[in-house]
Amino acid sequence: MFVRNTWYVAGWDNEVGASNFFSRTIIGIPVLMYRSEDGTLHALEDRCCHRGAPLSIGRREGDCVRCMYHGLKFDTSGRCVEAPAQQRIPPQARVRVFPVVERNRWIWIWMGDPESADPALIPDTHWLADPAWRSLDGYIHYDVNYLLIADNLLDFSHLPFVHPTTLGGSEDYAAAQPKVERLDNGVRITRWTLDTDAPPFAKQVKNWPGKVDRWNVYNFTIPAILLMDSGMAPTGTGAPEGQRIDAAEFRGCQALTPETENSTHYFFAHPHNFAIDNPEVTRSIHQSVVTAFDEDRDIITAQQRSLALAPDFKMIPFSIDAALSQFRWVVERRVAEEAAQAQQRQAKEA
Amino acid sequence: MFVRNTWYVAGWDNEVGASNFFSRTIIGIPVLMYRSEDGTLHALEDRCCHRGAPLSIGRREGDCVRCMYHGLKFDTSGRCVEAPAQQRIPPQARVRVFPVVERNRWIWIWMGDPESADPALIPDTHWLADPAWRSLDGYIHYDVNYLLIADNLLDFSHLPFVHPTTLGGSEDYAAAQPKVERLDNGVRITRWTLDTDAPPFAKQVKNWPGKVDRWNVYNFTIPAILLMDSGMAPTGTGAPEGQRIDAAEFRGCQALTPETENSTHYFFAHPHNFAIDNPEVTRSIHQSVVTAFDEDRDIITAQQRSLALAPDFKMIPFSIDAALSQFRWVVERRVAEEAAQAQQRQAKEA
Amino acid sequence: MFVRNTWYVAGWDNEVGASNFFSRTIIGIPVLMYRSEDGTLHALEDRCCHRGAPLSIGRREGDCVRCMYHGLKFDTSGRCVEAPAQQRIPPQARVRVFPVVERNRWIWIWMGDPESADPALIPDTHWLADPAWRSLDGYIHYDVNYLLIADNLLDFSHLPFVHPTTLGGSEDYAAAQPKVERLDNGVRITRWTLDTDAPPFAKQVKNWPGKVDRWNVYNFTIPAILLMDSGMAPTGTGAPEGQRIDAAEFRGCQALTPETENSTHYFFAHPHNFAIDNPEVTRSIHQSVVTAFDEDRDIITAQQRSLALAPDFKMIPFSIDAALSQFRWVVERRVAEEAAQAQQRQAKEA
Repeated sequence: MFVRNTWYVAGWDNEVGASNFFSRTIIGIPVLMYRSEDGTLHALEDRCCHRGAPLSIGRREGDCVRCMYHGLKFDTSGRCVEAPAQQRIPPQARVRVFPVVERNRWIWIWMGDPESADPALIPDTHWLADPAWRSLDGYIHYDVNYLLIADNLLDFSHLPFVHPTTLGGSEDYAAAQPKVERLDNGVRITRWTLDTDAPPFAKQVKNWPGKVDRWNVYNFTIPAILLMDSGMAPTGTGAPEGQRIDAAEFRGCQALTPETENSTHYFFAHPHNFAIDNPEVTRSIHQSVVTAFDEDRDIITAQQRSLALAPDFKMIPFSIDAALSQFRWVVERRVAEEAAQAQQRQAKEA
Repeated sequence: MFVRNTWYVAGWDNEVGASNFFSRTIIGIPVLMYRSEDGTLHALEDRCCHRGAPLSIGRREGDCVRCMYHGLKFDTSGRCVEAPAQQRIPPQARVRVFPVVERNRWIWIWMGDPESADPALIPDTHWLADPAWRSLDGYIHYDVNYLLIADNLLDFSHLPFVHPTTLGGSEDYAAAQPKVERLDNGVRITRWTLDTDAPPFAKQVKNWPGKVDRWNVYNFTIPAILLMDSGMAPTGTGAPEGQRIDAAEFRGCQALTPETENSTHYFFAHPHNFAIDNPEVTRSIHQSVVTAFDEDRDIITAQQRSLALAPDFKMIPFSIDAALSQFRWVVERRVAEEAAQAQQRQAKEA
Repeated sequence: MFVRNTWYVAGWDNEVGASNFFSRTIIGIPVLMYRSEDGTLHALEDRCCHRGAPLSIGRREGDCVRCMYHGLKFDTSGRCVEAPAQQRIPPQARVRVFPVVERNRWIWIWMGDPESADPALIPDTHWLADPAWRSLDGYIHYDVNYLLIADNLLDFSHLPFVHPTTLGGSEDYAAAQPKVERLDNGVRITRWTLDTDAPPFAKQVKNWPGKVDRWNVYNFTIPAILLMDSGMAPTGTGAPEGQRIDAAEFRGCQALTPETENSTHYFFAHPHNFAIDNPEVTRSIHQSVVTAFDEDRDIITAQQRSLALAPDFKMIPFSIDAALSQFRWVVERRVAEEAAQAQQRQAKEA
């Protein structure tokens, strides 16, 4: 079960070119994305309403999509506007369309009731497009349920074990408990480690005179969007009090989008505001993140396989699980609310 | 659920040689076919009644089959006639036998109650064996439910889209609505297109002075047998009135036999009565059909994958679906009748 | 459903080295085996109690196992003794440990209630370690339910059909009915064939003056342990009366351990007490057994595939099935007893 009434990231904007069809499955539904001639993005269910053939292996005709099985043609509103050998097109002959918004390099898609799709609800990720910041586009595919990845992103204790030579840093860093605050639609993590060593990846891109103060402050919100203010500054320069002098700052943007119950799209970038005219630094930061994410994927995929063998397995909660437990609780509540609303609507209609 | 009391095509007669064992799964049941020494064809369930080992990896002994697990020997009636280290052979030790008839190059098998297996019910496909006609043997395997292929064969609107350069012809051809008549065990399609272009495949094998009149008349009957009278004659020579002058005539014979719920055997040939002493023409016609069927298989397999993701998908019917809807209705009625008969029999036995 | 309160063979002792982690799934449960520094063997459930990650991809620290996801450390009793960033370790934070005993080259594991794990219940297989006997370690993996292999091992009638050139021998040998006695935890098979030909494998390793008397006496007991006294002696030397002159004797030790419902570990060795200083003979005997077991695996795997297609298939019993039917009955009774005990315990706890 997935949250429906929320904005999911459906892709990087340049995955859908001027003329190609792009199909991606989101919360179990195949979605065809393409652009009309004026560049506007459209998202249709990638399944003809007639006999179920995928539209993405069809043909583009102007701004319309022609199913190449029986030749039905659909416009950008999903309406069937042509049907060969057919006197009358039934009014219910339409495929579902999904609200989509392109903003700051990401395509956001609304999988729930279209009338609730308010673009003001889209989180701010302007660092992805801001010329004062630099990053590379990231995408990896996971063969696990998205919540296992969310767990990982809401946990610090795994850093020295899964990422000893990349993100990990020293064990004192992992041992520091973050502050966890509940948000209406997720959790907020605040974590300061004062007077500690800079982690390996940071040493690669900047010289540090000595110890650093390091912070990670992030919101992790429904459906599974992580927006992080992180970085480090030399100890003694006042970072904990709000000064950012000689700091290395990042604004990590990460989005998990369930593909199916057991697979997930992971979009990410790690914008930085230093050395922005040195592409080598940007590449190096990006590669550090990719390497660490590959480490996560290895252990999480092993975990998923292990859990699949033991459907009755009960996880034993530790206090380090506070943040992830709260987020799972927020998701469950939201899914339950949507289920209740759907029941009410059905009752009204009946 | 499949119709049981009907003749299915189980193979081309030369697939079962003088001495080989040939195993093919039909409506979910593995069937061993072989010939006794006088050439008579036999069909036994390919599963030993003792512990379930496949008989087809057993040994032929005279006209009998020896299971090579524990050595049970079965005669052509399915009776166990020898069991090593066994004083007494239990009377219920027999494997199921299926009535089979070889007729006009095809092996027909009856998967239902043997006492109802009337060879007079086998459709006429004598063109497969008639020296006045020529064709090559066709077989392809599909990983889809057979009804999706039946749908395709009862639909003309897909021709210009799926087969633009092969069977397709012009869109006016596809736009012409066929006449659909209900038969007791299927549907009859009659379709004339007058004064039209000959399709690409026909141009390859014959010179046409100008436009042609083109006809397709076929019965599609249970279980899923398509017998077609098709062809074309120069416009003005009287084809619609029953004359066949300078015509290119075909008698397409096609049979879908479900292997499992999600896979199908497809037997076909496309006999023609012109240029029969030119093997190149026969090969060319055959190859045109194979190419077109491969096009169908691509789109139908994509359709099946798409439908598998959406078990609740409701197809939206168009009027072009009249023929296939009627055939599906005939199949459903027959399956329901057989289920009711089985219940009655069980009630009587209880 | 598997018997739980019994000793299963988990491996050959040298599969678990001084420092490696060794993971094997037994009756559906992944088990991590390793040795503490004093060489003692330990078996823990290979799944961290916290979030389910496999411990076998973790790190060994002294005699403890560190899960390399969140860094929990477990001692040889399964207790979590360290948890980074955690004030208090919850007392229920432990992974299951399984009693293990190394005896005569095999590792025995108890998958049921630890308090019932009595090492005195382990069958005697001392021939595997006795310097007066020789054998090679055997292991093969089967993709079938273990009971289909047990059936095979309790049946003689298949020998001339599945193993015509290896174990098979003449058909008179297969035709002789064994004596079957019921044991409390299995069956005992006694089988003498007097004045018969030595089988091919025996001719390879020893010269026989003429006919032989051949015996197979074995216990097949829960969970699925076969211990065989077999051999042959020249006819007329008194073997049936208990003399063993010029005999070729074997003490086959075989153990089936279910991996899952549809896969099985098969451990075996075939100790002999003649020509023990000739490694070529030992290798030849071993290879004969391996070849024969591969023949069994081929037919049993075909049988499993055939049965998987026909969930309602009812096997027709023959009298040759007496031994295997009795063993299946013993297993079913034991599984039912354990289910009843589990219910009683749950009722008491409630």
